[in-house]
Amino acid sequence: MKTSTSQKLPVPALREKMALSPFLRLLGARLSRTHPDGVTLECPVRDDLRNILGGLHGAVAATLADAATAFALQRHLGGATSMATVELKISYFRPITEGRLLARARLLRVGSTLCVAAVDLTGERGKAIGAALVTYMLLKS
Amino acid sequence: MKTSTSQKLPVPALREKMALSPFLRLLGARLSRTHPDGVTLECPVRDDLRNILGGLHGAVAATLADAATAFALQRHLGGATSMATVELKISYFRPITEGRLLARARLLRVGSTLCVAAVDLTGERGKAIGAALVTYMLLKS
Amino acid sequence: MKTSTSQKLPVPALREKMALSPFLRLLGARLSRTHPDGVTLECPVRDDLRNILGGLHGAVAATLADAATAFALQRHLGGATSMATVELKISYFRPITEGRLLARARLLRVGSTLCVAAVDLTGERGKAIGAALVTYMLLKS
Amino acid sequence: MKTSTSQKLPVPALREKMALSPFLRLLGARLSRTHPDGVTLECPVRDDLRNILGGLHGAVAATLADAATAFALQRHLGGATSMATVELKISYFRPITEGRLLARARLLRVGSTLCVAAVDLTGERGKAIGAALVTYMLLKS
Repeated sequence: MKTSTSQKLPVPALREKMALSPFLRLLGARLSRTHPDGVTLECPVRDDLRNILGGLHGAVAATLADAATAFALQRHLGGATSMATVELKISYFRPITEGRLLARARLLRVGSTLCVAAVDLTGERGKAIGAALVTYMLLKS
Repeated sequence: MKTSTSQKLPVPALREKMALSPFLRLLGARLSRTHPDGVTLECPVRDDLRNILGGLHGAVAATLADAATAFALQRHLGGATSMATVELKISYFRPITEGRLLARARLLRVGSTLCVAAVDLTGERGKAIGAALVTYMLLKS
Repeated sequence: MKTSTSQKLPVPALREKMALSPFLRLLGARLSRTHPDGVTLECPVRDDLRNILGGLHGAVAATLADAATAFALQRHLGGATSMATVELKISYFRPITEGRLLARARLLRVGSTLCVAAVDLTGERGKAIGAALVTYMLLKS
Repeated sequence: MKTSTSQKLPVPALREKMALSPFLRLLGARLSRTHPDGVTLECPVRDDLRNILGGLHGAVAATLADAATAFALQRHLGGATSMATVELKISYFRPITEGRLLARARLLRVGSTLCVAAVDLTGERGKAIGAALVTYMLLKS
């Protein structure tokens, strides 16, 4: 992993890009922080995002894992690249019923075509909620 | 797979149960049809469910795959069982930009603790959009 | 899925190609049959392939799922293409302790770069042992 | 994650347990080292473990990821527990053609029924070869 910050997309530009995604806006997802090897996104446990049992719907965690990977890549690649999710695998450890869900993506591989991140999903106090592996494809423009 | 319909949860009861999920309501997901070995759910490609590139956000497909598995199990087990997603893996084949997304879950295994379904994701005319494998755990009450 | 048989790699050429894989030879994997949309491979439950509990080691099933996808693609593409596994996800339903394991791969998507197959893993009498989703990348030569 | 070493299975007992697995013996897998939250296994890139392109077959990496999770759990739980793989997902980053493959499992969750580990696959010099998420089920005896 190259972790040089020289050409990284700055945080305001990342936030602008996130605001362009209707679905992330619908969920209330936002950038929490950046890291040398990725980003953390967060999402509130809002009532309209709950499942039948009252916890945050697992697909919200999947959304956040997917988006955290995308924005880790956008940041790493300077923001000018189109990309698409190839596949996503997520494991759930326990429900989250209040506060915020955090998704911390670490880029494991940035290839010329395929990129992979590991994502740790936690509650506000760091409790492990789940984990994901996400593969993206860079689209040639 | 037992496919006896004797104690299966009927469609109106399935629809009632789906209506109890705030997140599925938010997405506009609904039951499309039932099968001897599963169910098909559908979701409209609404503007607020799009990603930055204009397609339906992949996490909507993940939601539908997860929910199709849950409701295939609810139907199979008669509706009285609490359950939670253990893990979900989804592969994306191409974007979907209009119409409806369909998720057809087939129960592959219904164990006393763990249950697995394969889900085919298609557009309205049957074009393959993606595929998923979803594992649920039955919760002892 | 195109399923024309016109330029498909014939069975003897498939068997020759499989014989070139040292690891498949080590496991005793062989082509069981072909289908319009894929192939079935098989592997004996040999004593040196068992796990601590006495069943066939799950990784043998993973090998067979991976190879069934590769040979379904080789057959579909006429045999002249280099390819590499991008990722593999496998779910296990029950142990298999005797006879042969069968892996039936169905090509779900054959793209210009990425290809995906669903694989059903069964025992000799068709009992479901597991299921897999496998992604391959075609390598430009 | 509890990481107390008080009742952990000691290394000689781990090695004895590994020696009971015919398939791990066949591959030449062995315990490389232990960590507070897991173990590292290793496997030589032997000629009979190669794929058609000459690299170590991906399924050997899958085996090592699976086994590293099992032995991380055996160590953590003191060695007296029967367990079975529920599912495994592995992503491949690049081929490995010589030396040894290392699989470093970190336990992410140890539940009363389900346990999950993340596994980093690397070459001898630490180059990333792949990554896996593995789920095990503890079997009540």
